[in-house]
Amino acid sequence: MLGNFTYCNPTKLYFGADSLEYLNTELPKYGDNVVLVYGGGSIKRNGLYDAVCEILNKQNKNVAEIAGVMPNPTLAKLREGIGIARNHHADLILAVGGGSVCDYSKALSVSVHCPDDPWEKYFIRFEEPDCELIPVGCVLTMVGTGSEMNAGSVITNQDTKQKIGHVFADEAVMPKFSILNPMVTMTLPYEQMVSGIYDIFNHICEQYFSGEDDCTSDYISEGLMRSVIHSADVAVQNPQDYEARSNLMWTATWALNTLVAKGKSTDWMVHMLSQAIGGVTNATHGMTLAAVSLPYYRHILPYGLHKFKRFAVNVWGVSTEGKSDTEIASEGLDCMERWMRSLGVTMHSRDLGATEQNLGRIADCVITMPGGYKVLTREEIEQILRESL
Amino acid sequence: MLGNFTYCNPTKLYFGADSLEYLNTELPKYGDNVVLVYGGGSIKRNGLYDAVCEILNKQNKNVAEIAGVMPNPTLAKLREGIGIARNHHADLILAVGGGSVCDYSKALSVSVHCPDDPWEKYFIRFEEPDCELIPVGCVLTMVGTGSEMNAGSVITNQDTKQKIGHVFADEAVMPKFSILNPMVTMTLPYEQMVSGIYDIFNHICEQYFSGEDDCTSDYISEGLMRSVIHSADVAVQNPQDYEARSNLMWTATWALNTLVAKGKSTDWMVHMLSQAIGGVTNATHGMTLAAVSLPYYRHILPYGLHKFKRFAVNVWGVSTEGKSDTEIASEGLDCMERWMRSLGVTMHSRDLGATEQNLGRIADCVITMPGGYKVLTREEIEQILRESL
Repeated sequence: MLGNFTYCNPTKLYFGADSLEYLNTELPKYGDNVVLVYGGGSIKRNGLYDAVCEILNKQNKNVAEIAGVMPNPTLAKLREGIGIARNHHADLILAVGGGSVCDYSKALSVSVHCPDDPWEKYFIRFEEPDCELIPVGCVLTMVGTGSEMNAGSVITNQDTKQKIGHVFADEAVMPKFSILNPMVTMTLPYEQMVSGIYDIFNHICEQYFSGEDDCTSDYISEGLMRSVIHSADVAVQNPQDYEARSNLMWTATWALNTLVAKGKSTDWMVHMLSQAIGGVTNATHGMTLAAVSLPYYRHILPYGLHKFKRFAVNVWGVSTEGKSDTEIASEGLDCMERWMRSLGVTMHSRDLGATEQNLGRIADCVITMPGGYKVLTREEIEQILRESL
Repeated sequence: MLGNFTYCNPTKLYFGADSLEYLNTELPKYGDNVVLVYGGGSIKRNGLYDAVCEILNKQNKNVAEIAGVMPNPTLAKLREGIGIARNHHADLILAVGGGSVCDYSKALSVSVHCPDDPWEKYFIRFEEPDCELIPVGCVLTMVGTGSEMNAGSVITNQDTKQKIGHVFADEAVMPKFSILNPMVTMTLPYEQMVSGIYDIFNHICEQYFSGEDDCTSDYISEGLMRSVIHSADVAVQNPQDYEARSNLMWTATWALNTLVAKGKSTDWMVHMLSQAIGGVTNATHGMTLAAVSLPYYRHILPYGLHKFKRFAVNVWGVSTEGKSDTEIASEGLDCMERWMRSLGVTMHSRDLGATEQNLGRIADCVITMPGGYKVLTREEIEQILRESL
C-alpha cells in the first residue's frame, strides 16, 4: 500500500430479500419533501414502485417525481430535474433504479443548490461541490455499476456527444443509504444481468491492471474476480439462483466503492474507450466495456506482462509449466474471452453502432489517462477501436 | 450472501507515512477538551507523543491524559478513566496506541455518560449504549487488532478474571477517524509484530471457517490471507520493508471491520479459548490465539472438511492430486503450522502461563458460541486446552 491515501465510505447498506423494510427506518431521518427518481418504468411492472410509494405515503412524505431517467442520463434531463427539485424544496432524493438512476440522483444532489453551470463545473472542470448537497438514498434494481456506494456520476451531453464521468472526492456525495435486494435483480432481462456482470468484472480489472508493486488491493481484487466468475457461471445456468445473484450484487458494490483502488494508480482506459462509444452510439455501458476489453488488454499485455501473468495464474488457474510468461499471460486473456462468450456479452463494437465511418469521431472523444501500463497514442486508440469492430 | 444484513462503517482512514498531518484536519471538528489516551510510554520514546502534543497545542486544545493503559485493559483502569473524562468534560477521546488503547477508548466513549454500571451493561448483558457517546479518534501504533475501524472493545475484570469482548452493533461506537502510519509500526519489537500478524490471520480464519455456502466474503478472506502470508514472509526477513508493513497494516483493518463477516455465521472459538487463557494468565492476545489455533482447527476439521480443503487449496496452494479430502485439508493446516513456526509465534500455551493445574479454571471461563462447525462440549474444551499446552 504505497503512497498516502484516505478511505471513507459512510454509505449504510441494507442487504437481503427483506431489505426494503429498512426504508421505514431511514425516511424519518430526513425532511418531508422527497424527490423520487426512476427510469423507464420497469419498477411499475415489478411492483417495486407501489411498495416504495406505500412506505412514502405511510410516512406522510410530499413526493415529487422525476421519471424516465434514461440508461445514459443526459444533461438536458439533469437540467429538467434541477427545476423539479428546486420547486419541491427537496430534502431527500430517493433513487429507485439501476446505476443510471443513482448516477443521475448524485448529479442532481450536487447541482440543485449550485450557482454555477453543473456541466461546466463538475464534468468539464471536475470541481468539487461547494454548495449544500441534498442527501441521496438508493433502492437498487440492477447490479453492476457500483453507483450505490460511491461518489461517481456519469452524465451525457447530447449536444456535444460527450459522456463524462466524475468521481467526486468528497464522501458527502455518496448515498446516505442503499437498499440492496437480490430478488429485485431477478426481474430484469438476461441481457441486463450479463451486462452488469461484465461491468463488475471490468471495474475490478481497471484497478487491478496497474502497478508492479505488491499491494493488498490486488489480492482482494483477485478474490472478488473469482467470486464474480463463479457466481456468473451459476447465474447463467439459473438466473433465479439467489445465492449467485446475491454474491453478484455484493461484488458489484465492492468492485467500485474505492476499496480496491487504494494504493493503486488504476487504469480506466477500457471505460474511456467504452464511454466514447457510448457517447456516440448510446449503447449499454456493460456491453461497450465488453466490446473493447480484449483488444485493449491484448494490446497492453507486453507493457504489464507481470500482472497479466499473475491474473492468468491467480484468477483463472492457468498452469505455468513449460510456458513462457507471454504464453501464460495470453492464456489468461483467452480464459477471460471464453468466459465472456459463455455469458453472451457483446464482443464486437459494430454490434453496438460503431462503424469504420464513425470510428474517428469516437476516437476524438476518448480521454487518455496516465494510471495504466501504457498511455495510448491517437494511433493506438484508433487501432484498438478498429480491432473492437 | 445469504440472509439479511446491514453494513455501515463510517470511520475515516488516513493512511501512509505522512498521515499524522491529517490530525490537523480532524481536530477542528470537535470541541476543545481532549482526553489523550495511551499505553506504557513507547510513544514517548519514539517521538509520537511529542508530535501529537505539538498538534494539540497548536490547535489550543485542553488536554487531559489517561496514561498507562495496559495490554489487557482492566475494568479498574476503565473506572479511573471515566472519572478523568467526566471531570474534563471531554469532547474527544484521542487514542494513541495499539488495539488495547483503542479498545479502552471505545469502552470509555460509551461509559462516561452512562448512568448504569458499564461492566454489567456492556460486558455482561451485552447491551447497546443509549447515552451520549464521546467521539473517538485513533492514532494507531501497532497492527493486528483491527480496533481502529470497528465497534469492538475487550475489557478484563481482574476481580473475576474475566476477559470479555463486546462488538457493538451501533456504528456510532466506531472511531470517527483513524490515522495509520506504517512507519510507526516499525518502531515496535519483533515479537509484537509477529503477534499482530497472527492476530490478523486468525481474525480472518474465525470468519472464514463457518458455513458451507458459496459466499463472496470467503473469496475476499482468501485474498486477505494470501496477502498477509506473503507480506509476513517479507517482514520477517526485513521488518523495515515499508511495502510489507503497510500491507500488514491495511489487512489488519479489513480483517476485522465487519466486511468479511457479512453473510457469514462466523466462529470466534479461537478467540473464546484465547481470551480465557488471557484472562487467567494476562498473556499477549496474538500469542494466546496462536497457541490454541492448531489444536482447535485440527479438532474441528472433520466437521468443516469442505472448508478446510478449500483453505488448503486456495490459500496455501496445496495440490489435490491423489489425495483424500482429509489429507488435503490436513496438509493445509500443516502449511499453516510451518508458517506460524517461521514467524516465531508461541505454539504452546504452557509458555504463556497455562498449566495442567489452572486448565480447569481457564476452561471455566471459555464461552461457547454457535457459529462455527461444532459447538464444543466441556470435555472438548479441556481436551483442546490440554493439547495446546
